[in-house]
Amino acid sequence: MLSCNSRPRQVLVINVGDELLDGIRENGHLLWLGEHLARRGLPITRSIVVRDNAKEIAREVGEAWGAYDLIVTTGGIGPTSDDYTRAAIASALGLKLEHVPSAEAALRERFKLIGRKLSEADLSQCFVPAGAEALPNPRGTAPGVFYHRDGKALVMLPGPTLELRPMFEEEVIPRLRDVGCACQGEAYVQVRTFGIGAVPLEAIVRPFLKPGMVLSFGTHTGVVDARISSAGSGFTADDLCHVARQVRDAVGHDFVCTGHACLASLVVEQLRSMERTVALAESCTGGLLANSFTDVPGASKVFAGSAVCYANDAKVNLLGIPECLIAQHGAVSAECAAAMATCAIEKFGSDYAISVTGYAGPGGGTDADPVGTVYIGYASPAGVWSRRVVLPGDRRQVKLRAVNTALDFMRRQLNKYRVEDLIHGA
Amino acid sequence: MLSCNSRPRQVLVINVGDELLDGIRENGHLLWLGEHLARRGLPITRSIVVRDNAKEIAREVGEAWGAYDLIVTTGGIGPTSDDYTRAAIASALGLKLEHVPSAEAALRERFKLIGRKLSEADLSQCFVPAGAEALPNPRGTAPGVFYHRDGKALVMLPGPTLELRPMFEEEVIPRLRDVGCACQGEAYVQVRTFGIGAVPLEAIVRPFLKPGMVLSFGTHTGVVDARISSAGSGFTADDLCHVARQVRDAVGHDFVCTGHACLASLVVEQLRSMERTVALAESCTGGLLANSFTDVPGASKVFAGSAVCYANDAKVNLLGIPECLIAQHGAVSAECAAAMATCAIEKFGSDYAISVTGYAGPGGGTDADPVGTVYIGYASPAGVWSRRVVLPGDRRQVKLRAVNTALDFMRRQLNKYRVEDLIHGA
Repeated sequence: MLSCNSRPRQVLVINVGDELLDGIRENGHLLWLGEHLARRGLPITRSIVVRDNAKEIAREVGEAWGAYDLIVTTGGIGPTSDDYTRAAIASALGLKLEHVPSAEAALRERFKLIGRKLSEADLSQCFVPAGAEALPNPRGTAPGVFYHRDGKALVMLPGPTLELRPMFEEEVIPRLRDVGCACQGEAYVQVRTFGIGAVPLEAIVRPFLKPGMVLSFGTHTGVVDARISSAGSGFTADDLCHVARQVRDAVGHDFVCTGHACLASLVVEQLRSMERTVALAESCTGGLLANSFTDVPGASKVFAGSAVCYANDAKVNLLGIPECLIAQHGAVSAECAAAMATCAIEKFGSDYAISVTGYAGPGGGTDADPVGTVYIGYASPAGVWSRRVVLPGDRRQVKLRAVNTALDFMRRQLNKYRVEDLIHGA
Repeated sequence: MLSCNSRPRQVLVINVGDELLDGIRENGHLLWLGEHLARRGLPITRSIVVRDNAKEIAREVGEAWGAYDLIVTTGGIGPTSDDYTRAAIASALGLKLEHVPSAEAALRERFKLIGRKLSEADLSQCFVPAGAEALPNPRGTAPGVFYHRDGKALVMLPGPTLELRPMFEEEVIPRLRDVGCACQGEAYVQVRTFGIGAVPLEAIVRPFLKPGMVLSFGTHTGVVDARISSAGSGFTADDLCHVARQVRDAVGHDFVCTGHACLASLVVEQLRSMERTVALAESCTGGLLANSFTDVPGASKVFAGSAVCYANDAKVNLLGIPECLIAQHGAVSAECAAAMATCAIEKFGSDYAISVTGYAGPGGGTDADPVGTVYIGYASPAGVWSRRVVLPGDRRQVKLRAVNTALDFMRRQLNKYRVEDLIHGA
């Protein structure tokens, strides 16, 4: 049941850390928090990255407190001498740091468990601004902080990703719901598509929207998402899901899923439900397609492996592609893609196989098949297919797009022939 | 020759775009600009992400102008209705937008080339704030903007990565040098290491520093960088390089390189110079090791391919690992890693091979070899080795660290036996 904010909230994210400004570490927290806050009806209004500097942190929070409904900080709450966030924010809000006995007990317990000695510096983590709550951190040492006053909330999260994410989900979201800041359910429904651009997708979605519903788009290397939200117009989750179903039917085969699942995990899920396996034969994607499968936990149930055959000799020796086929049609051809997929099934003993061969650039390519040309092969119990695409971007972009195109091709074929299998099986 | 800023500059980066705040796109520009500005003696002081909103952009720039030596914006300078940066900044600085005939000529030329018709909206890109320069953008349509007044500079860069990066290198850096904002050379030397923590590395580096030199550290999944900069103390590039050489000698085999080269590109480079090839056999890294090789342009000269054998059957059928070896020692073992590497050399006909087998998690692992345990195998003309490591982190972290550990192992072995080869060859 969706019961979302009636007015848009002002949300500020402050990421603390020199490494984010010196080109050393990607600001992955912003990406993750952006998605997870938006899903709870709290899209980020503005975000700031500051250095590990107490004065700067205090200045930002001092200026922002009052103007925002929610401030989220990441980093700088550990025990080391460059962790300033806790004290800086307390001073900015005119609060004393207070000792939290339960936080110290948890910390002592944790140190006993990992067999480390507690230092004076470690104990500094058990202090929070007066009136704030310490948030448990069973995966690390630094407790988070939740502070709520005058209808405004401030949250301090630890820097390590493996601590930040579960703390946000398990400790922060329930508290934000309790104080009426976050939605009870999801704030939007997302329809994920592949093979259709944002502009034609918008033309399909618009007619289904009711006045007051808000539509936005996200695109990632071929994947195009349409997000439909209530945005304070009082629509329920059912209303939004109803629109999403209409959009799904209108989009047809380009519809991938409702929600956030990636193409690889959808293919893995489908193969698991069918109790079937897949193998790969990769040339230009050079292992990236295999990696997208093996990033899915539990992929070993369905994923046999990949023959990454960069050199032509490897295509012949490892996969058993006939040399004459490569000599006649070239390694970048529909024929070679089809042979790679069928050979992969044989070598790995899998039920299905996908293959990719192409020119990722910057070198290579011909007049007929310029850089960016990729052939996808697909072998299955229902037959063998290949298709040609020309993909834009640099080397890494072409690799990424080729991976998504190959996964989407398999997804389509699985959907198509699953239906026919059922008919023939009946 | 290094001739760097005598006083630290205040640098603000403003990234414009809803997609950066809604969890749709990673703020890769901040990472890239962070590194490339720091290398020119212009470390980012603070960074802000704002939505595609003219008022917000104008407010940020209005507040910041005067307080910063350099402001760099990314995004929002295209021809569409949500591109506000150009006009918003002109209004914030109290400047009129002026037409730049040369920019229009270049745009007409570009549209003629790609066969598209120029619209009124496209022409809006040929206007820049009065007194500013339009920066050529041969890879896209929107020209950049360079503005300099009262010793302060403001730069507007286009959003697409493939346009932003070359424009920054080719058009912006030379202008920043001309106005005395950026260093003539590199602002720091970076010593890249692997296998040594930041704390012991600091203990090694400190004694070599001269008073006034500044030391900072960056760590990425096993790689630890020490950056030594002059920071306005008047040291020359030669002074810094002299320290870097002393550090290199003191660090010994853990020294990777001076600069920013990644482990995979160093191994590729070394193999190219030796005219030798490498093949891989991967289990738990699942294609990520192959992908790190194939991300290096020109890797096809030395990289034969990878047998990604996720299932045990694949290890037997594709690579030819004896079944009894897996039955006796298990697929995650030093014996299996060594067999995988030697079989990879045979199957691919390569000179060298690396193999990786282990438990990436979340499932798997034994009491003796818990999740995170990884065996690296290495086969070469000088012999076959394997080593065991236990790596921290979640599934993706373990994969990344295993890849770096494997690449570093090969780098070390190549260094070690190259020397001996020379002795035997003499």
